[in-house]
Amino acid sequence: MAVYTSVTDDELNAFLAEYNLGEALSFKGIAEGVENSNYYLETTAGRYILTLFEKRADPKDLPYFINLKKHLAANGFSCPLPVEAKDGDALRTLAGRPAVIVTFLNGLSPRVPNARQCKQLGTGLAQLHAASADFQETRANGLGPNSWPKLWAGRQSSAETLQTGIADLIDNDLAQVEAVKHLSADLPRGTIHADLFPDNAFFLGDTFTGAIDFYFACTDALAYDLAVCINAWAFEPDGSFNYSKSANLIGGYESIRPLTEKERKALPILCLGAALRFFLTRLVDWTDTPADALVKPKNPLDYAARLRFHRAVKSAADYGA
Amino acid sequence: MAVYTSVTDDELNAFLAEYNLGEALSFKGIAEGVENSNYYLETTAGRYILTLFEKRADPKDLPYFINLKKHLAANGFSCPLPVEAKDGDALRTLAGRPAVIVTFLNGLSPRVPNARQCKQLGTGLAQLHAASADFQETRANGLGPNSWPKLWAGRQSSAETLQTGIADLIDNDLAQVEAVKHLSADLPRGTIHADLFPDNAFFLGDTFTGAIDFYFACTDALAYDLAVCINAWAFEPDGSFNYSKSANLIGGYESIRPLTEKERKALPILCLGAALRFFLTRLVDWTDTPADALVKPKNPLDYAARLRFHRAVKSAADYGA
Repeated sequence: MAVYTSVTDDELNAFLAEYNLGEALSFKGIAEGVENSNYYLETTAGRYILTLFEKRADPKDLPYFINLKKHLAANGFSCPLPVEAKDGDALRTLAGRPAVIVTFLNGLSPRVPNARQCKQLGTGLAQLHAASADFQETRANGLGPNSWPKLWAGRQSSAETLQTGIADLIDNDLAQVEAVKHLSADLPRGTIHADLFPDNAFFLGDTFTGAIDFYFACTDALAYDLAVCINAWAFEPDGSFNYSKSANLIGGYESIRPLTEKERKALPILCLGAALRFFLTRLVDWTDTPADALVKPKNPLDYAARLRFHRAVKSAADYGA
Repeated sequence: MAVYTSVTDDELNAFLAEYNLGEALSFKGIAEGVENSNYYLETTAGRYILTLFEKRADPKDLPYFINLKKHLAANGFSCPLPVEAKDGDALRTLAGRPAVIVTFLNGLSPRVPNARQCKQLGTGLAQLHAASADFQETRANGLGPNSWPKLWAGRQSSAETLQTGIADLIDNDLAQVEAVKHLSADLPRGTIHADLFPDNAFFLGDTFTGAIDFYFACTDALAYDLAVCINAWAFEPDGSFNYSKSANLIGGYESIRPLTEKERKALPILCLGAALRFFLTRLVDWTDTPADALVKPKNPLDYAARLRFHRAVKSAADYGA
């Protein structure tokens, strides 16, 4: 739940005057995303989302995100399209923050996705990879395997207070990743969403209608994006693995882009790595968030359960690939 | 900022099937109201707000609020209209909570209202009183003067930690109200909003487009509603009194319904009382809200500054009446 920065009427009116979007009809903070402030903005021209980028967003990355969304939309992938102001620039400033207006995307985020939605999401992810195949800009994955030991350093005892015995397991996971991470360079690479959780995907009924929140997008192994989605979509709220959802997700993906043999072989370690990434960033948020913060940090232990599953996996077939 | 109760897709779909509103196109938690969970809901039939009533709402009061909004809308006052389901009932249950869908109201809530908006708001308040004049249902004001000593009891020392010396001042204020509160029965009475703060009022530009959030509405002295608005609209963020805004507010109100001599005479004590009401409920929230709560309580001292002003007032003329 976001909305950190509040916007005065005068600020909003001056900001809107830079666009050809007419007059504001409605402006409401919405509980979407946790990193930035998001507003539902309706004007005489239509419905939009206004995002103000908060401290964690690096301003120098913002043109990449905006250009990526423009590229995806131009290539038929449904995502919010950044709206250019009169001077042609979509990235602007509002209330002292970088800000962008994007088009409104119809659809609902599933709280607990069903197996049909998982199939659709897999197809959608492959379409995203296809639509970005000729996107020329690149961005390093700041939350890739090289960052994980740094996130972990000094947090072993915090992790132990959450679950006794977990620190040794994480140490082992990290050592395993460290030994094979160089192989990632041999996998098909491209632009990945890197955070395509259910709350960043929209559906009408079971039909995928698009993705939002590209603020972790980067250049990395395409199959790592699939591994993130397996973690985010194929586990139930109680932490149990749902084989059908996973198989559907992978099947949907492969209906557009079949995995290579190397990707298939790498899938278990990519899934373990993706689970580590979310375990570690949640652990950081868990230990660093002040008790009186407006945003409740997510429980890292959701990912401890996933790590336990991935450690026991023998091959990609265990995921339904 | 609200959104406490989350709604699953299955729950939402089953709920919507009770209405003639078609299929959901969008469903987003919005940061509106602090007492209940509010969602922006768009369906193939239009735009709506879905409210889930949280613990502080007394279920037995909900029909009153719903009937009041229906009555106001039927009498030309712009407010969210409760939408009846197929069985004719607007008050329903969703995710274990009482729930209502209301129509979407265009407009923006001013962060810092200007003097023109204050005039419009005064007119709007009088229109609200006129539109509810023949509303037959009544509801006691649960936060009227009889409740204030109970809210204050045992909180003197908390108040002193916020501002040294304030406890004696509040004791005096309460004694002053106690001595004259019986006179309130002689003032013109009717249905009042009782919480018409800027975030509950919508404008397009400077034009008032309607009011929302009637969940403190009750039967009380009409001029007390005006006193609440003077407190909410005519003080600047730094606590200073803006005479022009107050005079505009009262002038707008009197352009529809002139105050009686008794109301004019009572205005200073009504303004003091309204400031006490918000000081005390904020003080309760301030002392009772756990440090890790999602909602930040508002600072009671905003109302200490208003109380200081009202104590020095000699007559209604000081408010521009």
